[in-house]
Amino acid sequence: METYEILKDLAIILFFAKFFAVVAKHFKAPQVVGEIIAGLILGPCVLGLLHQTDFITEMAEIGVILLMFSAGLDTDLKELIKTGPVALLIACFGVFIPLILGTILYMGFYGFAPWGSDEFYKAVFTGTIMTATSVSITVASLQEMGKIKSKVGTTIVSAAIIDDVIGIIVLTFVIGFKDPASHPTSVIWKTIVFFAVALVGGYIVYRIFSMLDKRYPHTRRIPIVSLAFCLLLSYVAEKYFGIADITGAYVAGIVLCNLSDNEYIERKMDVSSYMLFGPIFFVSIGLKTSFDSMDIHFLAFCIGFVVVALLAKIVGCGLISRLCKYNWSDSLKIGVGMMTRGEVALIISQKGLSTGLISADYFTAVILLILISSIATPLLLELLYARDEKHLKSAGV
Amino acid sequence: METYEILKDLAIILFFAKFFAVVAKHFKAPQVVGEIIAGLILGPCVLGLLHQTDFITEMAEIGVILLMFSAGLDTDLKELIKTGPVALLIACFGVFIPLILGTILYMGFYGFAPWGSDEFYKAVFTGTIMTATSVSITVASLQEMGKIKSKVGTTIVSAAIIDDVIGIIVLTFVIGFKDPASHPTSVIWKTIVFFAVALVGGYIVYRIFSMLDKRYPHTRRIPIVSLAFCLLLSYVAEKYFGIADITGAYVAGIVLCNLSDNEYIERKMDVSSYMLFGPIFFVSIGLKTSFDSMDIHFLAFCIGFVVVALLAKIVGCGLISRLCKYNWSDSLKIGVGMMTRGEVALIISQKGLSTGLISADYFTAVILLILISSIATPLLLELLYARDEKHLKSAGV
Repeated sequence: METYEILKDLAIILFFAKFFAVVAKHFKAPQVVGEIIAGLILGPCVLGLLHQTDFITEMAEIGVILLMFSAGLDTDLKELIKTGPVALLIACFGVFIPLILGTILYMGFYGFAPWGSDEFYKAVFTGTIMTATSVSITVASLQEMGKIKSKVGTTIVSAAIIDDVIGIIVLTFVIGFKDPASHPTSVIWKTIVFFAVALVGGYIVYRIFSMLDKRYPHTRRIPIVSLAFCLLLSYVAEKYFGIADITGAYVAGIVLCNLSDNEYIERKMDVSSYMLFGPIFFVSIGLKTSFDSMDIHFLAFCIGFVVVALLAKIVGCGLISRLCKYNWSDSLKIGVGMMTRGEVALIISQKGLSTGLISADYFTAVILLILISSIATPLLLELLYARDEKHLKSAGV
Repeated sequence: METYEILKDLAIILFFAKFFAVVAKHFKAPQVVGEIIAGLILGPCVLGLLHQTDFITEMAEIGVILLMFSAGLDTDLKELIKTGPVALLIACFGVFIPLILGTILYMGFYGFAPWGSDEFYKAVFTGTIMTATSVSITVASLQEMGKIKSKVGTTIVSAAIIDDVIGIIVLTFVIGFKDPASHPTSVIWKTIVFFAVALVGGYIVYRIFSMLDKRYPHTRRIPIVSLAFCLLLSYVAEKYFGIADITGAYVAGIVLCNLSDNEYIERKMDVSSYMLFGPIFFVSIGLKTSFDSMDIHFLAFCIGFVVVALLAKIVGCGLISRLCKYNWSDSLKIGVGMMTRGEVALIISQKGLSTGLISADYFTAVILLILISSIATPLLLELLYARDEKHLKSAGV
């Protein structure tokens, strides 16, 4: 392929993404929903104008990393430390409820399977796919609504980060039972070491950046080197610790969130993000969707899979939030905010495919889950916040 | 390759590019020189830490397009129309002097060749490679010095654009003599049609954008849709008219340069450019360089090739500028500004390789020319402008 061919793809993505984002905004829906729908329309599902290429995948990866870095930068560190224990609890329930319900769903469709049988592992794997929240869409909508720094926002983001990690640990255990070559305990160790390294290394990096920032405030070198640090930590997380690169990006943001030039850095990231990388990421979600190998029975399974996956998070995370003394409205927001799935679900499915636990058809179910949760979460969050404001107003009167 | 591998490359590029840019600035050299040197050090020449990948090539392509779009946006349209005829004249001399001197150089090294022989075409082709100015480095340094909008800046940029086009026409003629399948007259037609379409279509696009801009001033949709337009025009130029995509990007910038939100758009482009795409483009120039297949005779030829290519532009463009009533200092600046070569020289070489006119070794000479001209041009321009200011100051005293 000639290099200039990418220009056409990018031009189409930008035109359509912005057009549908404006349409979405017109209907009071979050703009990211418009961008995902743009991808759906451009992709193999409808027009077939665009196809997933390596370049689009790579640009989308940078897009989601910029998004998570920006969310990290926007973190209120005190709030994070305060919400930490609760977030851990929410994350645990957010993993185990979907895991159990997913297993039951599979057995409901394909018959009960005794402990240790192949079918049993397939059932458990169906639950495993449902475990990992992908917070990027939620982050984007919370940012759009200006709620990312709120208590609810911080809780969701940190719970989702923890739940990603727990999801990966569960995955390794499930595969570990089937395939003795993977070592579940080493995964736990690696995770602990990563966060220890991030804590110590992060503090050193923060001191260096503070010094740089004091000497050269508001210069381009600050955001550029910050971005380099974010990319490096994302890479190291994924490559050496088996932790999702987006988690690395978020941690990098947290490391730098107390810099005095924090807002300056974030503004530069935001421009890069919304000018090009963001739209590519959201459009690429829609691009991945295709309904070629669909029959009635599998369609029913897909619908069940999506419904169970969404409800499991709302119920699991929402109820435990209520028990942790969030009010009903905030608990519901946390449950809804945690229900989005993304690339981690795809990564887990990919892993299941390569170890023979699931067939390729499963991807349709997973992508459907990603797509529907990505569209539903922002819409529901918008509604929930709008309802709150209405209540506040009527209380004010 | 796993997608996350690109993160490492990008992190390394950003770290090193910014570090060497700061070092360059410290020594009062333009930052782009630092970034190119960073690429040289990271690449196969020195450390071998980084290699040219598809992804880097594609990102670099977007980088140079953003640069040219930005230069177009920054154009003073009245100045452009005023300098147009002079620029055309400068471009013609900037093509024909290198063409003749390059041909003579080849014959000097490899013996005189009679008209129409294979060796004769090789000699002419050596000259052809020298013809096309690549203005991106000059644009970047003029932008850094704040001189892009000056009369000299506008003259250089428009002459370089015209000279690109003439270079491509010469290429088609040279190949046309060897290979009857290519049609030199169709190239001229396509070029005329492209500029006609750009003029008419550009006016319509400008009216639409003016309307949009009046209704939604300072909204994100303006720069995003502008970028989409730029990418589309770049693609169309290259794909359907055989004109370099960077020329399309520059023309797109000119179309929008009179919008009232012009500066707002440019600021957004600049952030995306210097945060990521710019450094990748400049580093990638250094990455391409390698000195594996070098012997004494070829080294001598390379040196001759570089020296002749640089001097031919300075003399050709400089003298004709002087005749067009620029003063000596400005004429020299125009000559120096026109001497950078870039991707168009590589494209021409690639074409020569595929039609069997030159061997792959030639690439070393071309890359050396690109590298040296890319480093020398900004340095010399900086010196020339600094000398001017000194003169002005002492005149003021």
